[in-house]
Amino acid sequence: MTSVLIAQKADSFVTEKISSVDLQYGGIPGDLHFGLTKRAGAREPMYKRGTEILNRRQISIVSAEECAIIAEEMDVPKILPEWIGANIVVSGIDHLTKLPAGSRLIFPSGAGILCEGENLPCIHPGHVIQKQYPNKSNLAARFVKAAMGLRGIVGMVEHPGMLHTGDQAKIFIDS
Amino acid sequence: MTSVLIAQKADSFVTEKISSVDLQYGGIPGDLHFGLTKRAGAREPMYKRGTEILNRRQISIVSAEECAIIAEEMDVPKILPEWIGANIVVSGIDHLTKLPAGSRLIFPSGAGILCEGENLPCIHPGHVIQKQYPNKSNLAARFVKAAMGLRGIVGMVEHPGMLHTGDQAKIFIDS
Repeated sequence: MTSVLIAQKADSFVTEKISSVDLQYGGIPGDLHFGLTKRAGAREPMYKRGTEILNRRQISIVSAEECAIIAEEMDVPKILPEWIGANIVVSGIDHLTKLPAGSRLIFPSGAGILCEGENLPCIHPGHVIQKQYPNKSNLAARFVKAAMGLRGIVGMVEHPGMLHTGDQAKIFIDS
Repeated sequence: MTSVLIAQKADSFVTEKISSVDLQYGGIPGDLHFGLTKRAGAREPMYKRGTEILNRRQISIVSAEECAIIAEEMDVPKILPEWIGANIVVSGIDHLTKLPAGSRLIFPSGAGILCEGENLPCIHPGHVIQKQYPNKSNLAARFVKAAMGLRGIVGMVEHPGMLHTGDQAKIFIDS
């Protein structure tokens, strides 16, 4: 794991690097997406918008290597995990985004995150990327296309505990 | 949905039919498997046994058709969902056990269950089946083999609400 990040501003999903986080049931206390429940939105069309539902999107995990591929596809120098609201950046895991739901990341503290599947890209992080590169055009829409299958996963805290920058996580793939 | 069932005896996973259940976050209040958290066991070898973890196994759902196939494979007249600790019995869904994690069952009340994947068969329900058919041999081990891929799924309550016998559930398959 190369970084841990938190979205501490109420009006933005953009995250900032911190040296460690104290994972709790519900996610990262103080983070925009913290909570055992959330309000249903466009990603949960089977519920009326605003319905309180279990929060499967507590933690956003991206891969440094996949972010580099997205940047290359979009012809921009880089995409920072902060811009796309990542909470955890990992490296050295092949095809993180394709990790099946039900898989786990287990950290040295014993903390565990349950993979709830691919984080399908939406346009909002694309707008943040566009602002970084004002001389490029159409980056928001291009992000959605380029990031498909590469934008990482979302997960739930299965067991609380500390995460530190530089931690080595173990991956248990659910087959 | 043909039946709803509950395991109300503290010392047994065997369920009994009831006419309706009030699903809450954590499962079915009063049921053996109710809880937002559970203790890690043999199914979660990445945690030390007894560690408190998120409970993904709140609800057991089986298919009437798949139970019939297991019975045929085991050469017994029938396998009641009660014997294998089912909370919900559905019919008319093809390959329920293969429903991908992240799929949903949505009920007329609005209640929703998030599929957390296949319930891998273990020997304990096999012992219950063996007791029903004392003249047959080796049914416990035969259950584990025959029920692979057919023993239904486990899930978490994503949105609370009532379930009634005879409800028609909508399935949203996560691809």
